[in-house]
Amino acid sequence: MNFCSDNATPANPEVIEHLAKVNQGLQMPYGADDVTERVRLKLCEIFETDLAIFPVATGTAANVLSLSLLTPPHGAVICHEESHINVDECGAPEFFTHGAKLIGLAGAGAKLTPDAVTAALDWDWRGVAHHVQPACMSLTQATEYGLAYTVDEVKAMKAVCDRFELSLHMDGARFANALVGLDCAPADITWRAGVDILSFGATKNGALGAEAVILFDRSREQEMHFRRKRGGHLFSKMRFLSAQLEAYLSDDLWLRNAGHANQMASELGNGLAQLDGVDLVHQVQANEVFVRLPESIFKNLRAQGFEFYDWPLGGPDCYRFVTAWSTEKSHVSALLAAAVGKK
Amino acid sequence: MNFCSDNATPANPEVIEHLAKVNQGLQMPYGADDVTERVRLKLCEIFETDLAIFPVATGTAANVLSLSLLTPPHGAVICHEESHINVDECGAPEFFTHGAKLIGLAGAGAKLTPDAVTAALDWDWRGVAHHVQPACMSLTQATEYGLAYTVDEVKAMKAVCDRFELSLHMDGARFANALVGLDCAPADITWRAGVDILSFGATKNGALGAEAVILFDRSREQEMHFRRKRGGHLFSKMRFLSAQLEAYLSDDLWLRNAGHANQMASELGNGLAQLDGVDLVHQVQANEVFVRLPESIFKNLRAQGFEFYDWPLGGPDCYRFVTAWSTEKSHVSALLAAAVGKK
Amino acid sequence: MNFCSDNATPANPEVIEHLAKVNQGLQMPYGADDVTERVRLKLCEIFETDLAIFPVATGTAANVLSLSLLTPPHGAVICHEESHINVDECGAPEFFTHGAKLIGLAGAGAKLTPDAVTAALDWDWRGVAHHVQPACMSLTQATEYGLAYTVDEVKAMKAVCDRFELSLHMDGARFANALVGLDCAPADITWRAGVDILSFGATKNGALGAEAVILFDRSREQEMHFRRKRGGHLFSKMRFLSAQLEAYLSDDLWLRNAGHANQMASELGNGLAQLDGVDLVHQVQANEVFVRLPESIFKNLRAQGFEFYDWPLGGPDCYRFVTAWSTEKSHVSALLAAAVGKK
Amino acid sequence: MNFCSDNATPANPEVIEHLAKVNQGLQMPYGADDVTERVRLKLCEIFETDLAIFPVATGTAANVLSLSLLTPPHGAVICHEESHINVDECGAPEFFTHGAKLIGLAGAGAKLTPDAVTAALDWDWRGVAHHVQPACMSLTQATEYGLAYTVDEVKAMKAVCDRFELSLHMDGARFANALVGLDCAPADITWRAGVDILSFGATKNGALGAEAVILFDRSREQEMHFRRKRGGHLFSKMRFLSAQLEAYLSDDLWLRNAGHANQMASELGNGLAQLDGVDLVHQVQANEVFVRLPESIFKNLRAQGFEFYDWPLGGPDCYRFVTAWSTEKSHVSALLAAAVGKK
Repeated sequence: MNFCSDNATPANPEVIEHLAKVNQGLQMPYGADDVTERVRLKLCEIFETDLAIFPVATGTAANVLSLSLLTPPHGAVICHEESHINVDECGAPEFFTHGAKLIGLAGAGAKLTPDAVTAALDWDWRGVAHHVQPACMSLTQATEYGLAYTVDEVKAMKAVCDRFELSLHMDGARFANALVGLDCAPADITWRAGVDILSFGATKNGALGAEAVILFDRSREQEMHFRRKRGGHLFSKMRFLSAQLEAYLSDDLWLRNAGHANQMASELGNGLAQLDGVDLVHQVQANEVFVRLPESIFKNLRAQGFEFYDWPLGGPDCYRFVTAWSTEKSHVSALLAAAVGKK
Repeated sequence: MNFCSDNATPANPEVIEHLAKVNQGLQMPYGADDVTERVRLKLCEIFETDLAIFPVATGTAANVLSLSLLTPPHGAVICHEESHINVDECGAPEFFTHGAKLIGLAGAGAKLTPDAVTAALDWDWRGVAHHVQPACMSLTQATEYGLAYTVDEVKAMKAVCDRFELSLHMDGARFANALVGLDCAPADITWRAGVDILSFGATKNGALGAEAVILFDRSREQEMHFRRKRGGHLFSKMRFLSAQLEAYLSDDLWLRNAGHANQMASELGNGLAQLDGVDLVHQVQANEVFVRLPESIFKNLRAQGFEFYDWPLGGPDCYRFVTAWSTEKSHVSALLAAAVGKK
Repeated sequence: MNFCSDNATPANPEVIEHLAKVNQGLQMPYGADDVTERVRLKLCEIFETDLAIFPVATGTAANVLSLSLLTPPHGAVICHEESHINVDECGAPEFFTHGAKLIGLAGAGAKLTPDAVTAALDWDWRGVAHHVQPACMSLTQATEYGLAYTVDEVKAMKAVCDRFELSLHMDGARFANALVGLDCAPADITWRAGVDILSFGATKNGALGAEAVILFDRSREQEMHFRRKRGGHLFSKMRFLSAQLEAYLSDDLWLRNAGHANQMASELGNGLAQLDGVDLVHQVQANEVFVRLPESIFKNLRAQGFEFYDWPLGGPDCYRFVTAWSTEKSHVSALLAAAVGKK
Repeated sequence: MNFCSDNATPANPEVIEHLAKVNQGLQMPYGADDVTERVRLKLCEIFETDLAIFPVATGTAANVLSLSLLTPPHGAVICHEESHINVDECGAPEFFTHGAKLIGLAGAGAKLTPDAVTAALDWDWRGVAHHVQPACMSLTQATEYGLAYTVDEVKAMKAVCDRFELSLHMDGARFANALVGLDCAPADITWRAGVDILSFGATKNGALGAEAVILFDRSREQEMHFRRKRGGHLFSKMRFLSAQLEAYLSDDLWLRNAGHANQMASELGNGLAQLDGVDLVHQVQANEVFVRLPESIFKNLRAQGFEFYDWPLGGPDCYRFVTAWSTEKSHVSALLAAAVGKK
């Protein structure tokens, strides 16, 4: 059984059914279809504000288009040193911003803190031509270690942004998982707390390949149209991208999926934590479990074919287990049994 | 009825069914799934050679990733002045090549000719630091006016490429339509005629959003992996991109779709050409019909709600009609009837 | 004797003497020296307005920094197809604008005309994500054929800019030569006629390597500081760049140099035009002479070692002769004598 | 008196005299002059090997052109976190490499160490599309703290480069100062130790604004011609750039200048170190002195108008003093006297 990544999971069958449903007759291309506007209205409702959406197919595209709107080429993006944009996107942020610099800072659990950012930026760089100009901060919600920033934490980061005149981007590849963990309103953890642009992820949580860049400030909407097209990310048959989002948002599918995944992670984390020699490296707040495993348990799991990543950045003997909407209770039980050598 | 664009058409239902079919269990992400390799092998068979494929979701992505592999930042791409890459991609080729220049040349039917290219390049630019260095030629198959380059024509262009040391890219957004019109082997019109990279389109011809960059020379495969990722075009759940291509290639669906679309265009073109005052602007060789219409016919069609684009680049009173796999014979008959005022 | 280019000429000795003069003691680097501000004030006086200056060492740098300030990556620059920025800068404009497109238009004497620009832009591209967005027009003063835009002509181009919402850049690599030919105030031919940014050239007309980007609208000054540094064009010992400009502007050296060069061109043009079989291809309005020469005269000149470029873009048997501040009357006489076989 | 920076110093008078000397008659532009080739031959002799040179006017240009030749857009440059390219060039390296990432590592005295690099790169990134690909290492000689890498140290770094398949760039903005400090052959500390490209600085050490990119491997020479032009760094009247280098290299002016500057730094460092409460933060190996000063000494110096930078990255109460070819013994004495309150 595979606990490597939520990217390895299938899509919800109802998402694919919905593709079939919107596959009727002709629809004007490039986003001028009916589905895309319906999705926008649905997201306006969910986020309790008027907003612009730009559906794209990958999380990288969502992130880098967002950052490119907020950061000039001579700018810098403040992010965690282990963040996906800094480590796992092959320089796509640099490409789309035309060469802005990512300033990666340390922080437990891959969380940025006001202190770390303040320490990094508290010197005389503003307006000085020799130095890149920090222009944007990017928070990952949930973080690379499955931790969720609380509303107060986001607000505290926003205060730092205000001090240094930074825009605020949220990488929400696992936004639903964080949201469910926080049990708050989508608006509260985003624009009401100061987020300017959200990469709203759906792929990991049940779609085939669909994300939405959400602009809470619509004034830069026009520019984003050019950036998306220029990046090759404007779908001609956009309805099929939007349809995934429509199904994802219908009947709270996104929240149900995330709730289930989180529940599975919680059970997995709790179960493992009770075993001798196992330490949870981080609290389980979303759908990821980071644990230190003794060699015996590691070997037991591998012996029965369980797949999961070792995570050396988390320290020695640190491993990552990811659950998803499709993880079954029996998978968790099987893993916990295997950990102690049962079949 | 809408004859505006093949981008407005639905996907083949069997493509969506195939998405459901591959939606079983976990698959390693980012192209390490089973489907993607099956598609590659299928394309190797179709093109009778070993090749590398890079599935992406948009034609723009396919084109600009291809061009970026063949053209350095100080290079130039020779193309037709009306080509999609020059006119309709918002500078995406310039973005992905980091600023190479597109040199757009004139030519009837949006076809490049050996003479036009030779005239443009026959001066002392090579190695001279003041001038961008032509590095690549891009042919559109079928062209913006629905014309297909014959095997001999592609070979003649390749000879020009060889003279000026250019690589050869083929934008095959409507490759299937051209191929069916030419009635030749895929290999003959591509690598055997000298094409280095093909943008193999599926979206317009029955997919939801799927194209493949095909490298006939595998030596630059590694570099393309980075370029695709960096462009935000690497799908995590790649199986769903590849599955579209798999369905598209199964049981000759791609050729059947294109054959039907071409047949509909042919009937539409022939039917219109027989009407008083109508001139075919170009021969119908694929799935597009360009005609000059007298005002009366234009008004008749609009009166009954037929949608199609005026095409001023084609001359005064020039209009474009595009057919697709989903165009029905009855649509064509209805249009021809409406043209003469019948209902 | 060499009539190939004003780039081949020496610098005015007084420019070098002035370098020695400012070479006293320490001066704060990067433009915070005394000389740079003095040059700015002098240019404010010459142009009768408050302005910002950015000294750089090459004309390419001046042009592309200017264009980068006026053109977004998804934008386009309208220019003449034979303009230096389009033909002779190896894609530097594309590099500094991060991939904007140069749209090169035809026009006699390398002059853009309102009609040519209007014809090129009079379609529905604005706000359409598929198309690059024309953002800036660049006029070369004097043109590649040594013609000067009159004040009325610049104003007419500005009206076209206004219609299409374009900024206006002037490539003044030979600004002094044009100005002297026009006999008008610097302000009249620039900001009063609508020019936003001027590349103010000095290198060809007596400096070692010095140009100034002049911003008539100071609101984008801050951004230019970053762009110049990022391009590697911020001199640490800026005083030596500024000193060249200071000497150039002192005692009207720039105007005297240009006046002399123009006078030499005029005499050369007139002299050649009186010979049998010689046609002036363009009126001589600055320091360049374009003529069609019969073979006999061409051979006579080469036989006596005169160097000049053939200029095939100007038509068959077209040649270019460039004069400069350092061209002597005796050089012109010698050339005219040699043309008819005298020594 | 100003000890802020060697950028604030004048040029050697003999450099300016040499400008006047080469200012005779016409010379073909863009590097096809006599002076440039003479400089190349002189540098071949100095470095005991055939090499290519690209004169440019700024250290930033030299560095970023070098890096751009060694690093693809999806690549990374390994450098010290406090290096000039990482901190003081406003993202110019990212611009010229089209978005490569700079990976800044810690190390005492702004020195990279084999251990630090190995620790950073010893994981499975090679060939993995998610990660930028380290392609180049850049060493600063002398470092930002005025320390010189010994021949053995450079060789040790080269061994790390070989292990990770990195090219090796040396930022020699203060190359002469390091060289004199090391007392070794130029070849030994560069290509014989494995350096591929050297930014050979002259500006800080006596020129007006002149550096040379030196390629020890000439195979990439052609590409550099395009990159330099495209960056706006190809001088039309190149002779004036090359003439500075010619004067700089004549009669060992460069070594004499550096020797003097180093001597002044040494005396300044020794003098300060003998004062109560003063600590040298780093050994003085070139022309920079980093010291911790007690408040009384700091105040004494400021009271008498001495200028120098505080250097917070060096720790609390850390200050930087830079000497140059033009620093006089009496300046040093005056400073040492002022430190203890004498006038």
